[in-house]
Amino acid sequence: MLELFYPSSVAVVGASAEKGSVGNTILNNLKSFKGEVYAVNPKYSEIEGVKCYPSILDAPDVDLAVIAVPARFVPKTIEECGRKGVSYAVIISAGFKETGSEGAALERKIVEIANKFGVRIVGPNCLGIMNPEINLNATFSSVMPEYGKVAFLSQSGAFILSVSVWAKKTRFGFSKVVSLGNKAMLDESDFIEYLANDNSTEAIMLYIEGIQNGKRFMEIAKKVAKKKPIIVMKSGKTESGSKAASSHTGSLAGSYEVYKAAFEQSCIVTAENVEELFDFSFALSKYRKVGDVAIITNSGGPGVMASDAVEIYGLKLAELSLDTVKKLKEVLPAAANFYNPVDILGDADTTRFLKAFDIVEKDENVGTILAILVPTASINFGEILKRVIKSTKPLFCCFTGLSGEEEEILIKNRIPNFFDPVRAVKTISAVKKYASFEFEEEVEDIEFEVDRRNAEEFISKKTGYVGVEGLELLKYYGINVAPFGIAKNADEAEEIAEKIGYPVAMKVVSPDIIHKTDFGAIKLDVTRENVRDTFFELVSRIEKFLPHARIEGVLVQKMVKGGREVILGAKKDPQFGNIVMFGLGGIYVEVFKDVSFRIAPVSKREAYKMIKSIKAYNILKGVRGEKMADLDSLAETIVRFSRLSIDYPILEMEINPLKVFEKGCVAIDFRMVLEGDIK
Amino acid sequence: MLELFYPSSVAVVGASAEKGSVGNTILNNLKSFKGEVYAVNPKYSEIEGVKCYPSILDAPDVDLAVIAVPARFVPKTIEECGRKGVSYAVIISAGFKETGSEGAALERKIVEIANKFGVRIVGPNCLGIMNPEINLNATFSSVMPEYGKVAFLSQSGAFILSVSVWAKKTRFGFSKVVSLGNKAMLDESDFIEYLANDNSTEAIMLYIEGIQNGKRFMEIAKKVAKKKPIIVMKSGKTESGSKAASSHTGSLAGSYEVYKAAFEQSCIVTAENVEELFDFSFALSKYRKVGDVAIITNSGGPGVMASDAVEIYGLKLAELSLDTVKKLKEVLPAAANFYNPVDILGDADTTRFLKAFDIVEKDENVGTILAILVPTASINFGEILKRVIKSTKPLFCCFTGLSGEEEEILIKNRIPNFFDPVRAVKTISAVKKYASFEFEEEVEDIEFEVDRRNAEEFISKKTGYVGVEGLELLKYYGINVAPFGIAKNADEAEEIAEKIGYPVAMKVVSPDIIHKTDFGAIKLDVTRENVRDTFFELVSRIEKFLPHARIEGVLVQKMVKGGREVILGAKKDPQFGNIVMFGLGGIYVEVFKDVSFRIAPVSKREAYKMIKSIKAYNILKGVRGEKMADLDSLAETIVRFSRLSIDYPILEMEINPLKVFEKGCVAIDFRMVLEGDIK
Repeated sequence: MLELFYPSSVAVVGASAEKGSVGNTILNNLKSFKGEVYAVNPKYSEIEGVKCYPSILDAPDVDLAVIAVPARFVPKTIEECGRKGVSYAVIISAGFKETGSEGAALERKIVEIANKFGVRIVGPNCLGIMNPEINLNATFSSVMPEYGKVAFLSQSGAFILSVSVWAKKTRFGFSKVVSLGNKAMLDESDFIEYLANDNSTEAIMLYIEGIQNGKRFMEIAKKVAKKKPIIVMKSGKTESGSKAASSHTGSLAGSYEVYKAAFEQSCIVTAENVEELFDFSFALSKYRKVGDVAIITNSGGPGVMASDAVEIYGLKLAELSLDTVKKLKEVLPAAANFYNPVDILGDADTTRFLKAFDIVEKDENVGTILAILVPTASINFGEILKRVIKSTKPLFCCFTGLSGEEEEILIKNRIPNFFDPVRAVKTISAVKKYASFEFEEEVEDIEFEVDRRNAEEFISKKTGYVGVEGLELLKYYGINVAPFGIAKNADEAEEIAEKIGYPVAMKVVSPDIIHKTDFGAIKLDVTRENVRDTFFELVSRIEKFLPHARIEGVLVQKMVKGGREVILGAKKDPQFGNIVMFGLGGIYVEVFKDVSFRIAPVSKREAYKMIKSIKAYNILKGVRGEKMADLDSLAETIVRFSRLSIDYPILEMEINPLKVFEKGCVAIDFRMVLEGDIK
Repeated sequence: MLELFYPSSVAVVGASAEKGSVGNTILNNLKSFKGEVYAVNPKYSEIEGVKCYPSILDAPDVDLAVIAVPARFVPKTIEECGRKGVSYAVIISAGFKETGSEGAALERKIVEIANKFGVRIVGPNCLGIMNPEINLNATFSSVMPEYGKVAFLSQSGAFILSVSVWAKKTRFGFSKVVSLGNKAMLDESDFIEYLANDNSTEAIMLYIEGIQNGKRFMEIAKKVAKKKPIIVMKSGKTESGSKAASSHTGSLAGSYEVYKAAFEQSCIVTAENVEELFDFSFALSKYRKVGDVAIITNSGGPGVMASDAVEIYGLKLAELSLDTVKKLKEVLPAAANFYNPVDILGDADTTRFLKAFDIVEKDENVGTILAILVPTASINFGEILKRVIKSTKPLFCCFTGLSGEEEEILIKNRIPNFFDPVRAVKTISAVKKYASFEFEEEVEDIEFEVDRRNAEEFISKKTGYVGVEGLELLKYYGINVAPFGIAKNADEAEEIAEKIGYPVAMKVVSPDIIHKTDFGAIKLDVTRENVRDTFFELVSRIEKFLPHARIEGVLVQKMVKGGREVILGAKKDPQFGNIVMFGLGGIYVEVFKDVSFRIAPVSKREAYKMIKSIKAYNILKGVRGEKMADLDSLAETIVRFSRLSIDYPILEMEINPLKVFEKGCVAIDFRMVLEGDIK
């Protein structure tokens, strides 16, 4: 994308002499660019002192075309760009997919033409792109931020307008700014891939509302995140993808949960608001890891706020070494606090602060320094900055009362500075989050022994809803299930029960009965003397209440006592493919929504993370003297379940409950919806 | 406190000619004050052009003395202030309680002297006070914020230094600023009480690390909050008040939880960080309530962010009336969004925005407007501000790219403006929080029939730990308990069991056995044939394993089946007296820490709030076809339990479990620790 971000020549197609118009604004914005700039518009020979050509075909060589003509003229323009050999076209013009089916057809057409000629397209319906490093503002935002190390990709052009003004004011710098628009051709994944090797970029900041090809995004993001942190804010969180669903997984896997799982698995740091997006990106453009936090402060209050926040955000206060404490005692007054937070007191002067800083910085137990200074007469920030910008440990500041010049020193050295100590600590925790990611692909440690032939045969016979009889399928995937058989008549039921042992559970097998308990289609704890009666009772009850339900038999299953009940769910997501959910059964899922998600396939390492990330993990570990549940078996079951979910066209699938024992786990009940009509 | 905040004359005792010294800085800061200012220091006759007296006794009449002499001279100075008839002394000097027992003695001494003469003291060990309204800066912060409608009380002087510089820069205004210091005499409660009637103050902002007299604070705060919102940030959250404790209540009632409960009960809005503290205070200085939110935006992205946040922060998007939608369709282009959020599109000009604003503002379904405008060429903020400052509905803005003058217009009209839409919505939710408080004292609707004579007799016989036999005490307070009796021998056990019916639970009564289950000191589901054997088994087991335990008998109790198990706890807090905890039994408390707290006594209304505020409330309401639990009986039990906890010197008390049925609830087990030795 060198020709896009570092073009030798830029043409504005649809340039205009009308002040305030988009075509005029873009041309004006390009004036600060040092390369060649041409205008294209048959109505003028010159605009704003820039030479104007009737067609791009008439202009000299062009790397980048910025197109601001009405939508209906865009196809022709792209074709001319193609014939001219233009590498990149940024299409500002609106009136495409966002307006409905006609616009979508027009959009497909321009992509077709562009592909034919090898022109790569940004947009349409976008604000444009910026490269502040070379003063290239190919947008209609009249304000361009300064140059910095953060690249910014945004699905909202308006947000870029707002950010540009704010960034200019606060001196937040960008390496590249891209308005993604309709993403007809180039999308966030393409830009992330390019930015991985862009020497001017140290962190990639992303604002998105949706991602089309989730799998590709995850693959690229994970690869790039290893080299450069990616920080994302996703909005459109609450438009729940599935208002009504036939399973817990369905109702809990709202679109934002899916995105969050995908980000986590792709080693992307998530921001929940605009402030976090900028704070995290700025810090991660410099720091890739942090350690235990040492706080040095001349003010008790803000020091306490920061200490609180360290615990609240899951960080640790560094335990200062005895040597450090001894040295601090030598340089600080007796009333100071020599432990962490190190309080050098309100009357501290520059020298006292610097002495404390030197000592704390050298402590091997200190991984990160948070320096808090309120402006007192004896503090000379100029002197202090000279020293702290050379900090050998990741440094975060709460310095209030800096001059503009002093602020600039911190910005240029990419040292984050905050008024609010809590916000500083939250930002440190974001760096820690990044550092906690495991970028290396793990070696797959489960040899899959899957009976694919039988699994395929099972699936091929089913359409729509599959009930408890689907336990058969789990068996083919090596998942342990409670012994069972399907009886067509009472004799068979008795036979099966005798074989597997009493008591048994009996469940009607029917593609038409989704909520078995609601219709009394299930009986638990059936003893030898009751098997026959129960068979008849179940069948006749269904025949009475649901006369049209097809009964395929009665499943007779060993009653499994004890164990801790968990739920495994899977659900197909349009962007990311199948997503897997894990949670503790019953109330934990229903009331506390205490579940974790991953995009399938789930590796064993990720499966362990899923298990450990729910609050009820403690229950699996064993509370009140219970033994620990077999987490290894559980993790392996998740891996196999996740694989099953992507091997066949499964819309939804759930094992509920899966019982986890001290040794092994057993699937008790199952349901699944295959793609196709639900009968 | 008129003489404190609006003095006619101020004397600086310990004024100094030495540049940069505290005594010099204060004198300099007072130069902008229009009243009389005197210096007091025997070494000078004039400092910085201010007349200097050897003693305050030599000066003309003084309302307010600001004292910056070494600690050892403060008693004499206060005495002189007293003899002079000075009303208020702000003691800047440090070296008192904060330095240890000697300093504490000195502090007691100055309070004694001050009381004798009727001098009221702010501090010592404080930064001073400010009244920007009359340019009174009686602190050693060289920067004073502008005048505004928020009063600021801070336990940290350093924080005021930091805030002053930040506030000056962002033009956040204050009506009064008070550095509380050691609070030897005047504390936050006194100032809050005064500010209730201060016409210049519309909201009270409080930063504290601890409160001494919690009960008095709550009483005053609740009264004042009704007139003026109080917003508090408490730090020192994580220094858990009780590291080891003998009950769930003890381990969960960390000091911050107690404070949060107290704030909630006192109708105080809590801020979790500095940013929230300022955002909430500014908004609440103007708005006392908000309604459903209408978003008007010229930018899709930020509009979506705000909509997400509305749901996340528990607010509601206003449902625009049909009439509104119709009118919007008349004035907006076809591609706009006429529903909430109202998207007037990126090309919207000032007129289009104002038309949409007029229409939305008139809609009766709209309670609050969030206007989001990114800076485009066609938006003229000057024009827009003229109109929106007259908004008849509470207005919050996300206007980016305002000039300094335009920003000032919003500030002067106290209209909050944010860069981050999420932060704007969070602030709206804080106003909603304030509006949700119930300020009126409820009429006590439970007539307490308490058998106080028997209760007192019971307590008088006990010291330290009291076990399950304390159910007796609950009975005297009208709390329903499972029928029981205490047997001294097997015959009695049988007799009691026969009377109450089988099966029974049998529990050893001993002040020395706190964890009954650990020693097998409890047997459940005992049948008629086993009562005698069980009695002997229990007693002999204790005699074997705990030969020194005193056995007072065996409690024989009716087994109560079913019901939902909850825990009621009480714990004495040094600041607030007894605190009551409520949660669902077992795993909910242990794993999810899903509990609620209130300061005792708890009214029935508050008891209902406690019940409804836990996540597991849904379980009490009945999930999976269960009937709703008897919340009224539960609430009444909480009220009675809370009353019991304050009527006697109880350190800790717990009913665990209390079983709640469709009708009524029953206490099953009990433990209590009385003040005094735990034997």
